[in-house]
Amino acid sequence: MTTKYILDETRMPKAWYNIQADFPEPMAPVLHPATKEPVGPADLEPLFARALIEQEVSTEREIEIPEPVREVYRLWRPAPLYRAHGLEKALGTTAKIFYKYEGVSPAGSHKPNTAIPQAFYNKQEGINRLTTETGAGQWGTSLAFAGSLFDMDVNVFQVRVSYDQKPYRRAVMETYGAKCVASPSNLTEFGRKVLAENPDHTGSLGIAISEAVELAVQDPNTKYALGSVLNHVLVHQSIIGLEAMEQMEMADAWPDVIVGCTGGGSNFAGIAFPFMGHALRGGESPRIVAVEPSACPTLTRGKFAYDYGDTAHMTPLTKMHTLGSQFTPPGFHAGGLRYHGMAPMVSHAKELGLFEATAYTQRECFEAGVMFARAEGIVPAPEANHAVKGAIEEALRCKREGTSEVILFNLCGHGHFDMAAYTAYFAGELGDYEYDDAELGMALSGLPSV
Amino acid sequence: MTTKYILDETRMPKAWYNIQADFPEPMAPVLHPATKEPVGPADLEPLFARALIEQEVSTEREIEIPEPVREVYRLWRPAPLYRAHGLEKALGTTAKIFYKYEGVSPAGSHKPNTAIPQAFYNKQEGINRLTTETGAGQWGTSLAFAGSLFDMDVNVFQVRVSYDQKPYRRAVMETYGAKCVASPSNLTEFGRKVLAENPDHTGSLGIAISEAVELAVQDPNTKYALGSVLNHVLVHQSIIGLEAMEQMEMADAWPDVIVGCTGGGSNFAGIAFPFMGHALRGGESPRIVAVEPSACPTLTRGKFAYDYGDTAHMTPLTKMHTLGSQFTPPGFHAGGLRYHGMAPMVSHAKELGLFEATAYTQRECFEAGVMFARAEGIVPAPEANHAVKGAIEEALRCKREGTSEVILFNLCGHGHFDMAAYTAYFAGELGDYEYDDAELGMALSGLPSV
Repeated sequence: MTTKYILDETRMPKAWYNIQADFPEPMAPVLHPATKEPVGPADLEPLFARALIEQEVSTEREIEIPEPVREVYRLWRPAPLYRAHGLEKALGTTAKIFYKYEGVSPAGSHKPNTAIPQAFYNKQEGINRLTTETGAGQWGTSLAFAGSLFDMDVNVFQVRVSYDQKPYRRAVMETYGAKCVASPSNLTEFGRKVLAENPDHTGSLGIAISEAVELAVQDPNTKYALGSVLNHVLVHQSIIGLEAMEQMEMADAWPDVIVGCTGGGSNFAGIAFPFMGHALRGGESPRIVAVEPSACPTLTRGKFAYDYGDTAHMTPLTKMHTLGSQFTPPGFHAGGLRYHGMAPMVSHAKELGLFEATAYTQRECFEAGVMFARAEGIVPAPEANHAVKGAIEEALRCKREGTSEVILFNLCGHGHFDMAAYTAYFAGELGDYEYDDAELGMALSGLPSV
Repeated sequence: MTTKYILDETRMPKAWYNIQADFPEPMAPVLHPATKEPVGPADLEPLFARALIEQEVSTEREIEIPEPVREVYRLWRPAPLYRAHGLEKALGTTAKIFYKYEGVSPAGSHKPNTAIPQAFYNKQEGINRLTTETGAGQWGTSLAFAGSLFDMDVNVFQVRVSYDQKPYRRAVMETYGAKCVASPSNLTEFGRKVLAENPDHTGSLGIAISEAVELAVQDPNTKYALGSVLNHVLVHQSIIGLEAMEQMEMADAWPDVIVGCTGGGSNFAGIAFPFMGHALRGGESPRIVAVEPSACPTLTRGKFAYDYGDTAHMTPLTKMHTLGSQFTPPGFHAGGLRYHGMAPMVSHAKELGLFEATAYTQRECFEAGVMFARAEGIVPAPEANHAVKGAIEEALRCKREGTSEVILFNLCGHGHFDMAAYTAYFAGELGDYEYDDAELGMALSGLPSV
């Protein structure tokens, strides 16, 4: 049976952690999409609140969490850490498995950790509308939740395939008072252009980002909010790992291996970076493993290069692992992991050799998720199933080797909104997809020359 | 903004509370369906574990919670109590509103509070299969969850209308390893009989109970589990109110009014009975308000009489508020509140004048739920919306009267599985239903003569 480690509210971190302070080499600069020169804060102001831009470029190790943000965090934070005795028993492993559970937030995932501060800083600067994109809907739900608490309008562009597959996510966003449309939409010039070429386009995060950005730059009272990828987002997510460090101490254990799933990179960075930074400052150095879907293998098969964050090439160029901004992954279910790029901070850490990456197919991840649900009682989100799969593989390795390593993984959300995918899995209707080199090469051939 | 009151795990109650110890008059005996004589424990043994039968008839005030049950409870308990500052502000009320939140369980509702001990006691007595019925799916999900943790088979008969409307609930049950079929089904004699008369029957909890009971009595290694109504179920749910009492003390407040929604009565009893018992023993005496749907008005328009718990008349006769065992409510969405009867303990307390009851239509409850979601950040289950509506009405009364009463209500579950109902609400497609006296009279005319 499971053991839960609860951190007292008074021990909730008062500052986020910024790994830029500890990187042995600085990150590559962000470039302007037109001039290809490094961007300054002024270039980003049409899109983001000034406070967030400051965080984006900050190299301070600690960034204070404002009290109004901490107040909302306390709705569900500190999030619990569990020892997965049930899963250990089911696997017959000698490993000790721990997981941090972010599904306790009202949106059911880790995404509110950044939605709340993004809404707060924008509101503080007089902004009253936020636009964003969403894949599976977890990010859109989270920003809608944040918008309702800070009394802001929220416009969400949801990738068409998810919009159609997950109508209930849209209902949650609307319950929080947000407006949600399928992307590509006819609300933006770019959306209309995509639809003119292909009226049945199933959408992609890249396209949805282009639409949300287009809407934001047109109105000085509207800014854009991104749920992953950017430095400030990853900084906000560090609260996951910071809490987990305290909870591992409560459990009188320290991870030998840390596992997280990667889409844009934010939940992985959230659990991993505080431990990684601790190691960079001379502390114990756990192995860190990123798990991504074979159908969107950014870290394992992408290229580390400058690329656009969106399909319409309106965003700055960042150096990251990318499959090419024109890459459209198949309409498989783990919608939160369908992004063509990877957070520049995560990509930089990968190039520095600070962690490993591996990819699994969708079906084997669902198999792992079902095993976890039956052993631990929590049904994971499809994205989180990738982390579960990674942790199980590590635990089975320990079993083979007869070692009792401590494995920590991030269970970034529950699957209550994603049961259609489980239904498809049980019915044997869930597809796997792996690219051949030619397909990936084609997408990568379009990378911008810098 | 909201304030959260977290009880330390060490303060989680070690015993459930049994209001039978404090009732000023004893409850009416349970009668055998054939002889109409009081039933003895032996009559119930084909259906229930002996430990549960003991609890059913116990008049002990405290019933110890076994350590293996407490161990599972600790996965999500103690559940948080919140001060609803956001809702108070939105209402402009002078009242202080608190809510206990049971949606933090892995099943998303209060139902695991009894599913876990029911699975535990059965397993302890060598039973390896449980059958049950479910309406909205919250109970079936909870028993499936409990079954997976105690390694038992679970067969769920889900009311056809919910089975069709909520396919994702079925997927959760199957993820936990349970088998779920639509009721009426062709797996039982009674189900086949109903289908022969009407192949398109949308089902009812009464029919589903009959099917689950039929399957259980056929096999000595199979028992039946009920998610509400019975005394032992209400005893298990007392943990809600017991925790809330400690948390109200932490908040340095005590409720003037307690609100809960009623279907079978278990979540209402869970929050209310510990406070009610405290008052019966000479403590402070809050007003207690039960809120039920106008479309299934058991307490406000039913009759207090002996009736069957199921449609096929296989269960014992209990004295309760009932709309008649042949009553089939319309296929509206708050599936968890669609039962024709009311828990005998709750009915008895009502007859003793220990609480008030009121009914609201579905649409006004959804309106309240949406207001709550935007103010507090949690999307309530449709059932819970009734409690939200009741609490809001009390808060508005306080506003009119200029008083600052303390209102406590039970938010018994989140609505993440019920977003189709919200979609229908926003689309204006959600129906209200109120019975005329003739309709109800017809259902009530079939009550058994005792």
